[in-house]
Amino acid sequence: MLENVRKTHPMIHNITNYVTMNDCANVLLACGASPIMADDILEVEEITSLSDGLVINMGTLSQERIPAMLAAGKKANALGHPVLLDPVGAGASSFRMRTAAELQKQIRFTAIRGNLSEIKALALGTGASGGVDAEEGDSMDAGTEETAEFVKRFAKKTGAVVLVTGAVDLVADANHACAVFHGHPMMRTVTGTGCQLSAMTGAYLAANPEEPFTAALAAVVSMGICGEKAYQRMQGEDGSASYRMYLMDAISRLSGEELERCAKYEICG
Amino acid sequence: MLENVRKTHPMIHNITNYVTMNDCANVLLACGASPIMADDILEVEEITSLSDGLVINMGTLSQERIPAMLAAGKKANALGHPVLLDPVGAGASSFRMRTAAELQKQIRFTAIRGNLSEIKALALGTGASGGVDAEEGDSMDAGTEETAEFVKRFAKKTGAVVLVTGAVDLVADANHACAVFHGHPMMRTVTGTGCQLSAMTGAYLAANPEEPFTAALAAVVSMGICGEKAYQRMQGEDGSASYRMYLMDAISRLSGEELERCAKYEICG
Amino acid sequence: MLENVRKTHPMIHNITNYVTMNDCANVLLACGASPIMADDILEVEEITSLSDGLVINMGTLSQERIPAMLAAGKKANALGHPVLLDPVGAGASSFRMRTAAELQKQIRFTAIRGNLSEIKALALGTGASGGVDAEEGDSMDAGTEETAEFVKRFAKKTGAVVLVTGAVDLVADANHACAVFHGHPMMRTVTGTGCQLSAMTGAYLAANPEEPFTAALAAVVSMGICGEKAYQRMQGEDGSASYRMYLMDAISRLSGEELERCAKYEICG
Repeated sequence: MLENVRKTHPMIHNITNYVTMNDCANVLLACGASPIMADDILEVEEITSLSDGLVINMGTLSQERIPAMLAAGKKANALGHPVLLDPVGAGASSFRMRTAAELQKQIRFTAIRGNLSEIKALALGTGASGGVDAEEGDSMDAGTEETAEFVKRFAKKTGAVVLVTGAVDLVADANHACAVFHGHPMMRTVTGTGCQLSAMTGAYLAANPEEPFTAALAAVVSMGICGEKAYQRMQGEDGSASYRMYLMDAISRLSGEELERCAKYEICG
Repeated sequence: MLENVRKTHPMIHNITNYVTMNDCANVLLACGASPIMADDILEVEEITSLSDGLVINMGTLSQERIPAMLAAGKKANALGHPVLLDPVGAGASSFRMRTAAELQKQIRFTAIRGNLSEIKALALGTGASGGVDAEEGDSMDAGTEETAEFVKRFAKKTGAVVLVTGAVDLVADANHACAVFHGHPMMRTVTGTGCQLSAMTGAYLAANPEEPFTAALAAVVSMGICGEKAYQRMQGEDGSASYRMYLMDAISRLSGEELERCAKYEICG
Repeated sequence: MLENVRKTHPMIHNITNYVTMNDCANVLLACGASPIMADDILEVEEITSLSDGLVINMGTLSQERIPAMLAAGKKANALGHPVLLDPVGAGASSFRMRTAAELQKQIRFTAIRGNLSEIKALALGTGASGGVDAEEGDSMDAGTEETAEFVKRFAKKTGAVVLVTGAVDLVADANHACAVFHGHPMMRTVTGTGCQLSAMTGAYLAANPEEPFTAALAAVVSMGICGEKAYQRMQGEDGSASYRMYLMDAISRLSGEELERCAKYEICG
């Protein structure tokens, strides 16, 4: 999966938030893809046409960008490109709830990635209150069978592969669910690791168009392994900023062989 | 003060510039708080309601964001949340001068942080010409009694705790002024250390709502101590980017005990 | 050239993309200049008037920013400030093509910097399809005499110094062309090294207003030398993020003496 990214250098069009945009561009380069960021309605369809995949991220959402998101998403659908939705802070405001619903109505998403709060907000249509970070307790039950069934139902309803990230990550489509046992709590001390995973998943999907479930799973496992490797490099006075750098370093160095060898996940539904 | 941030994880709503937004989010995570960035008028009131404090930063100011700033500020006032203003480049254009005046008119700020140029521009209503960096000489006299009195008068007029950062930092309210002897000149070689301090002060204020003066003082001292610790790690080929990382690392590792033990400041008015 | 930047601290006004804005601010500080980012039509003329040079970067282009770009550029022209254009992704959409043409029509650029795809798009008025990264093969022929002649003709037509960056860099005006043999392929694994060079070139031009060709050449050579020095520091688990930090570190430490001593370029047209 990863090797296909490094071989084909898919170009990923990102309509994304301004907080972690730079990180998303760098993570795409680090995994072997090519980023392009464009969010003006006058060019998004052309940019999407040039690209191999599209990632729509709802962070720092603004009214002006929504028509661009819709236009790009519909064009990507028409061209058969994979489209990923990252519903950042979905439950934090009714504006984000409405926008998430509208995006899902008009665009067919190949994958949707969020923390459990965000996925619950989308699936249940009710606002959570934890802002952009997962609510306390949300990550706790990600490993349970009940959660797996819930996520599978949402995957079935949307037709998307659903990625729920937390202490344990879940990847599900209508018929399968896998729990991924990787990552490190330090990932939550750095802004944008979720956005980075979304961007990277876009690249894996674009490079492996026939196998969206496996591509998404590989992306989640990759990020988790790199989160662990980054922690292993921590020493002396290193803190959250060093960790952030080590994480990106690890992504840029990860090989397909290492990914295959280290992957720990299990079918859970 | 710091331990209360780490214990309560206050959520800080930032309406801030696009240059240092990522740094502000990371510094909030590093000190134990939780960042949320949102600047669309359709959601800022809801986001502020979910949050524990609000930071309004005027860098890369745009007309579209001003109504969002005003709406969020008024809502935060109504809820009794602390609100901090960072008047980035206040004197650099009449647009920023007018906006700073309008924000102060409609919003009651708990704290205002800037360099001496910016605070002078606000207090005197006259444009300086040094752009977003302090003018030569501005930092020179921050330690004098005359400056302390000037800043105290501005604090009295606005009802805010005023933080003036430079070679020597000043923290003042209507009745007290403290000079802080921390920090390092290398902090000026990295963009956004001022914005980072503003974001962090927002977290300290939110976690210590009864003691805004002491909370602001603790934030300034924290940043200064971390600026020194970062410099001590410099070696070999390290330059401004390593320094930037070491600074964030130090913020993520600072303990309340260390803050208490190292703090050097004196009452100067 | 570099020493003049470090001596005069030129203030550079950037109207630039949101992906690499933070990097551009940091690179300006690292080379001794002072950055200011402002893109609202209500203030760009004043900000440009305070500044010593202007850099217009077309990444994440939006309709709203175009009038600000035009107003700032015309003001900088009127004041005799150097103005640099970075036509990021010029060939990627007709919106960018039209905007690049409009900017060139209304503003007299001191310098234009892009990869060969972007410069070709501008010179020939035809869209390339490689997005923001150079197309495969484009960097291959940058060293040839044919390319040098092509770039000189474009420099003559526009009256600008033209900087084409790739495996070999080219700097040309109407009468001269130099090929620069510096840099490292790892520079392409980090987003925004092109934008950083554009920002830095703006500083070199502002500090050396009488010699735009030599100033631009010095900036290109500086970036290339720093790209090599950054690579030499790579060790152990270091990846693209460490490289990015080492690059900025090297820029902040480069001396005029070192620049003079290491520079490898040759006149090629």
